[in-house]
Amino acid sequence: MAEDAARPGEFDLIARYLRPLADDPAALNLTDDAAAFVPPPGQSLVLTKDMVAAGSIARKALRVNLSDLAAKGARPLGYLLGLALPADWTPEWMADFAAGLAGDQAAYGIALLGGDTVKAAGGLTLSITAIGAVPDGGMVRRAGAKAGDAIYVSGTIGDAALGLRLRLGTLDGAAAGEGTAHLLDRYLHPQPRLALAEAVRLHAHAALDVSDGLVGDLGHMLKASGVGARLEAALVPLSDASRALVGSDPSALVSILSGGDDYEILAAVPLDRAAVFEAEAKAVGVPVTRIGTILAEPGAPQVVDGEGRMIQLARVSHDHF
Amino acid sequence: MAEDAARPGEFDLIARYLRPLADDPAALNLTDDAAAFVPPPGQSLVLTKDMVAAGSIARKALRVNLSDLAAKGARPLGYLLGLALPADWTPEWMADFAAGLAGDQAAYGIALLGGDTVKAAGGLTLSITAIGAVPDGGMVRRAGAKAGDAIYVSGTIGDAALGLRLRLGTLDGAAAGEGTAHLLDRYLHPQPRLALAEAVRLHAHAALDVSDGLVGDLGHMLKASGVGARLEAALVPLSDASRALVGSDPSALVSILSGGDDYEILAAVPLDRAAVFEAEAKAVGVPVTRIGTILAEPGAPQVVDGEGRMIQLARVSHDHF
Repeated sequence: MAEDAARPGEFDLIARYLRPLADDPAALNLTDDAAAFVPPPGQSLVLTKDMVAAGSIARKALRVNLSDLAAKGARPLGYLLGLALPADWTPEWMADFAAGLAGDQAAYGIALLGGDTVKAAGGLTLSITAIGAVPDGGMVRRAGAKAGDAIYVSGTIGDAALGLRLRLGTLDGAAAGEGTAHLLDRYLHPQPRLALAEAVRLHAHAALDVSDGLVGDLGHMLKASGVGARLEAALVPLSDASRALVGSDPSALVSILSGGDDYEILAAVPLDRAAVFEAEAKAVGVPVTRIGTILAEPGAPQVVDGEGRMIQLARVSHDHF
Repeated sequence: MAEDAARPGEFDLIARYLRPLADDPAALNLTDDAAAFVPPPGQSLVLTKDMVAAGSIARKALRVNLSDLAAKGARPLGYLLGLALPADWTPEWMADFAAGLAGDQAAYGIALLGGDTVKAAGGLTLSITAIGAVPDGGMVRRAGAKAGDAIYVSGTIGDAALGLRLRLGTLDGAAAGEGTAHLLDRYLHPQPRLALAEAVRLHAHAALDVSDGLVGDLGHMLKASGVGARLEAALVPLSDASRALVGSDPSALVSILSGGDDYEILAAVPLDRAAVFEAEAKAVGVPVTRIGTILAEPGAPQVVDGEGRMIQLARVSHDHF
C-alpha cells in the first residue's frame, strides 16, 4: 500500500511511534516477528487480553489489562499491542496515543514487547495482551472465596459509571459541582491498583477487578467460588461527587452498584487476615473498605441498605459486549 | 446489553463456542480474568501477535501466528484470542469459526488460554497472541545471516499471491486449470511449517516466515543482519499451477516474487549445516529448496534470472497495512 506524505506506512509508523516504547531486550527493538521473552525463574505467568473497539477510550486499554493483573496478585512485566487503524488515522492521534502509553509505561514499570498493526475497514480496534508474574501457583482466582471471608473493595466505587452517565447526559451533574471533572476522569483514566497486588496475593482467598459493576463482579466471584454474600450498600465507599449525586438523584445509587469501569479491586479476605490486609493496603497508600461478608449458601449477592432491607437491582452489571 | 434470542450475549458466547477450545489447565476454563501459565523450565517464550481485520480470513489468524512461531524455531504452547464482533454476527459464523479453531488446535497440539470479546462498530477484528517456547536463548532471529549462508525456502512460493489475484480477478486462471482451487486454498488456508521449526532452530543463522512477499521478507532479513543476497529466481520452487500461470502471463512471476501470504519459512543456513538441514527437513516431510546465497555487501536482494540477468521489481513486498 502506498504511503502518503502526511500519513506514514506501517514500518515508519512502528519506527516513529512504537519503537521508542519497546525498551525491553525481549522486544528486540520491534525488528523481529516475535518477542523472545525469558520468564522469571520460579514464577507463573499471568496473561490477560482486552480488546477495545473505540478510539475515545484507547488510552484505557493498557490500564484495563494492568488492572486485571493487579487483581490477580501479579506484577506486570510487559505487553503486546495490536492496532487495527481506520483509513483516516492521523499522526496527531497516534503521537498522542503513544505518549499516553509512554507515560503509563514509566508509571507502571513495563515496556512494549511486540505486536501488530493493520488497517481496518471500520473504526479503531485495539488489542492489548499483558504479561505479569506471580510466584508459582500464586495467582489469585475468582474461585476460592469462603464463608465468613470479609469482602473488601479498593478506592471508591461508581465514579466511572456516573462519569459515563454525565458524558452521555443521562444524569444531571449539578449536584456534583466541581466533582464532575473527577467523575469523567475516573471513567476515562482508570488507575490500576498495582500497588495493592502484593497484599491481594498474600492475603485474599479470591479477587477480581470491578469492570462490569460491583454487584455483577461480586456475582462472578460467588459463582466461581460456590458461595453467596451479603453486601452492605451503605458501606460502599463513595467519592464526595458521587455522594452528592446520590443525594440529588436516587438512580445514581443503582449506577454505582451495577455500573462498570471502576477498575478497583474486589477481594475476599479471611477474617484472620483482615487486619494485616488493611495494614498492608494502608502502607502502599491504597484505601480499602470492608463492604460485606461471604455466606455459605450459594447464590447472587444479597444487597442490603443501612437498615438491613434488601435492595432489588433491575440489572446487576454493565455488559461491555 | 440485552441478549436477543437468536444471538447469545458475551457469557453465553464464551460458554458455547470458546470454552470447548480451552482444554489447558492454564485457561481455568475461561472462568477467570487471566490465564495462569507455567512456563516450561529452562525455556524462553516466543510471543507473537497478529491482528486480522476481515471476517473472510478469520481462519488464517491462528495459523499466521503459528507460522511466526515455526520460523522462530519455537514449539507452540497456546494462544489468546481477542474478538471484536460486528453487531450482525451470526451464531452460524461463530460456530464455523470455532470449529476451524478446534481443528487447528488438534492439528497443532495447542489450546486456547484466554482472551476477550467485545462488540465493534465496524467489521470483525480478530487478535491472536500465540505463545511458543524455545530452549533459553534459542529463538532464531531475522538478524544473524552471514556471508556465504545458503538461503532456503520451504514448500512452494507465490501460490497464495496468485490465489489472491485469481480471487480478485486480476489474473486469467485458465492456464492453471484444476490447480486454481489449490492456489485459492493456499491463500485462504496457510499451513504453518511447525514440523520444520526444530531444524530451523538447530541449523539456521536467521529465519522468518514469508508473509509480505519473498523478496521483501528476504530484504527484512538482510537489513536486520547487515548483509546482502543474491536470489536466483529460476530456483524459486513453484507449484504446477503457478508454473502454468507464469507460462501464460509474465506478470505472475512478479506476484510470485513480491506477493505475500505464503507462510513458508525463509532461512539462512551456514554451508556446513546445509546437508543436515536438508536431511532433517526431509525427515519431517517438509520440502526445502536452496534459492540463493547471502553476500557480505549490505543491500537489497539482487534477484537474477536463469541467465544471471538482474530482474528489477517495481515493488518488493505486499504491505498488509
